[in-house]
This record gives sequence, C-alpha cells and structure tokens, in this order.
Amino acid sequence: MSVRTVAQKFVELCRQGKNFDVMHTMYDPHIVSVEGEGKETHGQGPVIKKSEDWVSDKAFNGETVAGPFFNGANPDQFVVYFTLDVTPKATGKRITLEEVAVYTVNKADKITREQFFYDGEH
Amino acid sequence: MSVRTVAQKFVELCRQGKNFDVMHTMYDPHIVSVEGEGKETHGQGPVIKKSEDWVSDKAFNGETVAGPFFNGANPDQFVVYFTLDVTPKATGKRITLEEVAVYTVNKADKITREQFFYDGEH
Repeated sequence: MSVRTVAQKFVELCRQGKNFDVMHTMYDPHIVSVEGEGKETHGQGPVIKKSEDWVSDKAFNGETVAGPFFNGANPDQFVVYFTLDVTPKATGKRITLEEVAVYTVNKADKITREQFFYDGEH
Repeated sequence: MSVRTVAQKFVELCRQGKNFDVMHTMYDPHIVSVEGEGKETHGQGPVIKKSEDWVSDKAFNGETVAGPFFNGANPDQFVVYFTLDVTPKATGKRITLEEVAVYTVNKADKITREQFFYDGEH
C-alpha cells in the first residue's frame, strides 16, 4: 500500500469508531506516541494501554475526522484533524476536544509514530 | 512573546480575515513556504505574491480557523486547521478547501516556515 492508502484506511476505521482496531492492526510494535506536552510512550502495548486509560474515566460520545492531509516534502506522513465529543465522569459535563495528529508510516505500511498537537488542557 | 502568544495573534488576525496583514507583519523576511506538493517558495515577498496569485482567480467567501495547537516536543511550532470557502472564477462553483498548516517561529517572534498539508487538489 501507499501512505495514502494507509491513511484512507485509517480515517475510514476511525469514522466507524474503530480506533482501537486501528491501534491493534495498523500500529507498528515499536510505535512511539508523543502526547501534546511532549511525553513519549514506546511500544504498541503501552500506547494502547494509554488510550484505554484515557477513555476509562469518560464517556465517548463520538468523533469527527478531517483528512487525511499530505505534504510532498514529508512523503511518509499523513495528518488528521480530530474533534472528540466526550463527557468526563468526574464532571458529567459534555465537552469537545480538538487535536491535530501527525502519523509516520514505514515501508511495511505500519504506523511507527503518532504526534498529537493540542490546544491546551486535554 | 512566546510561541503561544504569536500563535494566538496569528489566529485572531486570520479570523478577522486579515491573512495578508499576518504575512506582512508576522512573516520573517527569509520565510520558507512549503506547498502541499512539496514545492518551496523562499522569501516574504515571493510568499505574499504566491498568495496574491492564489486568490486572484477565485472569490474568497470566508474561512474557519481551528487552533492553534501545540506539542511540547516541537516548542517552536504551532499548528492550525483551516477551511477555506472559495468560488473559483473558472467554474463559478463554490467549494470548501481544507488544510492543516504547521508554522515555525524564531526567537524574534517571526514565522520562518509554513508547511501546508492538503487532502488532494488545491
């Protein structure tokens, strides 16, 4: 597959709410995940665990996915803009989070890096 | 100013439709602009000329600006998601273009690089 094909598959699965299927089937075993504050998590298992922990204290009401977007100078990357509609259990107040994510794809069509850009608290 | 302050000023001016004011006042003289296909344009004058050319054959109906977004591993950058509502004069058909842009800011608070990620034709 090309990076574009990987990216299209990625956004289609996310639009079906299959974010964890993406992580289990499209992430490289040695993926590095970089959160908004710059903290890195290494490895597919720990990265999936991080997402499981993130959703565990909130209700997930849905998401929108814009993209994928590409730039010819970075041919191994694609970019996605997400809005996440969640209700933190601690507050019960429904909020919308926004983020841009940059994904890097290797020659084996696996995602080796994800880097999230946030607008503040997340 | 911090990169966050520069970024907030940037999006506020864009939301007021003052995109060319941004280019004239916030861009470094030696800015590099990287279009979606990877083509680079060097220098504030040529970069502004490129945008003038881009708008010259279309009516610009408005834009939305999401962000700015940040990542602690790239402290000199901010990211914006744009939707551009335009009507190309050649077709007369109103369309919405989407793009993600990554901006790099130097110590003098000037934007030294902009890189656009597109979803296809632009």
